[in-house]
Amino acid sequence: MPSRSRPATPIARIIASGDEMTLGRTVDTNSAWLADQLGRAGLRVDRMTVVGDAQADVVQAVRSSCDGAALVVMTGGLGPTDDDRTRHALAEVMGVDLVERPGAWRAIERWYARSSRTPSPTNRRQALFPRGAAMLANDRGTAPGILARIGACRVACLPGVPHEMRAMFERIAARLPALVPGLVVPHVAELYLAGVGESDVQARIPGLMTESDPQVGITASELGHLCLRVVGRPAQTRRRIAELRARVGEWLLPEAGLAASVVGALRARRWTITAAESCTCGHVVAQLGAIAGVSDVLRASLITYHADAKRDALGVDPALIAREGVVSEAVARAMAEGARRAAGADLAVATTGVAGPGGGSADTPVGTVWVAAATSAGTSARRHQLQGMRDRIQRRAAAMALALAWQALGAVPAKPAASRAKTVR
Amino acid sequence: MPSRSRPATPIARIIASGDEMTLGRTVDTNSAWLADQLGRAGLRVDRMTVVGDAQADVVQAVRSSCDGAALVVMTGGLGPTDDDRTRHALAEVMGVDLVERPGAWRAIERWYARSSRTPSPTNRRQALFPRGAAMLANDRGTAPGILARIGACRVACLPGVPHEMRAMFERIAARLPALVPGLVVPHVAELYLAGVGESDVQARIPGLMTESDPQVGITASELGHLCLRVVGRPAQTRRRIAELRARVGEWLLPEAGLAASVVGALRARRWTITAAESCTCGHVVAQLGAIAGVSDVLRASLITYHADAKRDALGVDPALIAREGVVSEAVARAMAEGARRAAGADLAVATTGVAGPGGGSADTPVGTVWVAAATSAGTSARRHQLQGMRDRIQRRAAAMALALAWQALGAVPAKPAASRAKTVR
Repeated sequence: MPSRSRPATPIARIIASGDEMTLGRTVDTNSAWLADQLGRAGLRVDRMTVVGDAQADVVQAVRSSCDGAALVVMTGGLGPTDDDRTRHALAEVMGVDLVERPGAWRAIERWYARSSRTPSPTNRRQALFPRGAAMLANDRGTAPGILARIGACRVACLPGVPHEMRAMFERIAARLPALVPGLVVPHVAELYLAGVGESDVQARIPGLMTESDPQVGITASELGHLCLRVVGRPAQTRRRIAELRARVGEWLLPEAGLAASVVGALRARRWTITAAESCTCGHVVAQLGAIAGVSDVLRASLITYHADAKRDALGVDPALIAREGVVSEAVARAMAEGARRAAGADLAVATTGVAGPGGGSADTPVGTVWVAAATSAGTSARRHQLQGMRDRIQRRAAAMALALAWQALGAVPAKPAASRAKTVR
Repeated sequence: MPSRSRPATPIARIIASGDEMTLGRTVDTNSAWLADQLGRAGLRVDRMTVVGDAQADVVQAVRSSCDGAALVVMTGGLGPTDDDRTRHALAEVMGVDLVERPGAWRAIERWYARSSRTPSPTNRRQALFPRGAAMLANDRGTAPGILARIGACRVACLPGVPHEMRAMFERIAARLPALVPGLVVPHVAELYLAGVGESDVQARIPGLMTESDPQVGITASELGHLCLRVVGRPAQTRRRIAELRARVGEWLLPEAGLAASVVGALRARRWTITAAESCTCGHVVAQLGAIAGVSDVLRASLITYHADAKRDALGVDPALIAREGVVSEAVARAMAEGARRAAGADLAVATTGVAGPGGGSADTPVGTVWVAAATSAGTSARRHQLQGMRDRIQRRAAAMALALAWQALGAVPAKPAASRAKTVR
């Protein structure tokens, strides 16, 4: 902290409960989403705990998480069945009994009525609250949330279903300054970069990677971009963003991520894109397809996993494949050019590689990927050697194809998309 | 427990460390994978903790996790930089100093030598071990793991990089019975089902969902199948699997999951598959493409997000789209039939729907999806109303298309694939 007079950042902790997680059948994605949100809201998350359904384990997690924290956010365990124990655990820690809130029961009845159903008697459990706790409305499911106080700590219990949880948290977020004394909501701004590695960015910004006010962090996404995040007071954050932008301008993306920037640039030019995917097996289009509005720019795209498909659908010469190998620069280029022609698109990307676990050789080990991008100005190609398991290699290779598409968009003269910092809050 | 004389299941706990997780920038997938592995090995995971890089937080997590556990597995914090504090935290809890192991340093040098490089001086930190701790070899990266003892608890520290972590854990797994006193490695067997919901399965197997020896659990995968897992002593497990199979035979999948079963059945028939995807935007092929060996069966597949592409690439009549709407049974059928023709495939699946967040209407709200499957025997189609966010709707819709493909494969006479229980261990 630069100044000793500034108060310490309040601590938040997260608890996710459910046997499906401690048995390893479900990955807890809620906690990471909440940690990001809480960090943006000015809290520091120092611990996240996952426990099973057993009430004793939930009780222990609540006790230890509340100790020293300003806010604890819990997810899961609010369903109608006997193994949903969050409300019971909370009442046990609070030392109070559970009482039915008529308003909660009416809300559950209304939720069922919207689909012309009536709740079952077991849903009645969902109207039970620790005495003295408040209700958090759920407009996307049956489980109302709970807001309680344990000592100096506020506890918010949210459903485990991600889209219900997120909608409920977003309503709480507005109330956080009232719930957490001393909370200073920081200014958060982000720059997204592509075409550069983390160490090159760090070498370019010596002295600007400060730890507080503003705090500057850099993270590499599996989706092919880097994010520089600046968190601090508004004036400090704005000044640092300007300094950073001046240093890393050549790599700046205009949107929050590589796929969003590619889609945005295509829309701005009224261009279309197509993909011919081999080893990535749909991941290029899936990454583009995650961007709402992609329908304006995405032409018919092909997955040509098999060599015959590369010939039939893309016109890749079998003799070329026989001579160069299917994982080769020449085949990647021919795929991109064939795809561009076949789909009548302005830009085409192609991937060919060895995603594993089998299929590697000494010359072309698992993780070898060629990506290519073709426009009216020509075709570029690049080889990558990727690490990891099959699914990671597929996702990374798809991101590398989009990185090359982004470069190809920059290489063709056009009104450049505005490079701006995305102000998150 | 059926018999009081059987010893209690030993407790395992998992700690993942790294600021990227407490800041919400990375989802911790290691802990779920480890929890699954530890459960199969006969341990019960009752808590998983994520902490940041701060040594004090790691120390606190190690202390509280070791208390009452037979085994603690940690991931992350073994890198060469100053914020990698796992080895320091472990030494602090053990009350010992850190000493360099010459063997570890030589292993790091050898690892770099394999790519004709030399380690930097900071890598020397990775050869430091708490005095008395053992080294776990890493053949996929620079960070050796650490095996230590804290009181009655064994602690294994593994790298955070998933493929390094998994390879290292798999070697430890064989040694677990020696490391954990009283560990009884259970027999684990699984049945995979499709075309049925969880509650219908439960209604079919009353009395067989026992809680121990064997323990029977049922989980629904986002990828369109249910898994019935049976865990217990070998004879009990085998008997229960036979009982279950007799009850749920009509829904049994021959392989571990829907996509694997579709690929396996196609291979057995020497059939090919293609996909015409709209709202799923590559996820159908991505789910098939996750199965090694898919190259034998996957024909060129199309992503036709835009109505024009449905017309040009699949021959879907624009008048049909105008009359029925793009999200309709008629268009889904026409897409599947057009794709089958265009790719010359034996089986074609198609998807058309509204993945959101925008684009919904009163008749066709977000989450409405039509899937279709076409073979020489005819075309089937089904409407689904899916919940959740865009990415989940896309993944679930893709799984529903594969479920219909599985049904279509069953509807065409062929030598049936053998329905067998997959014995996991």
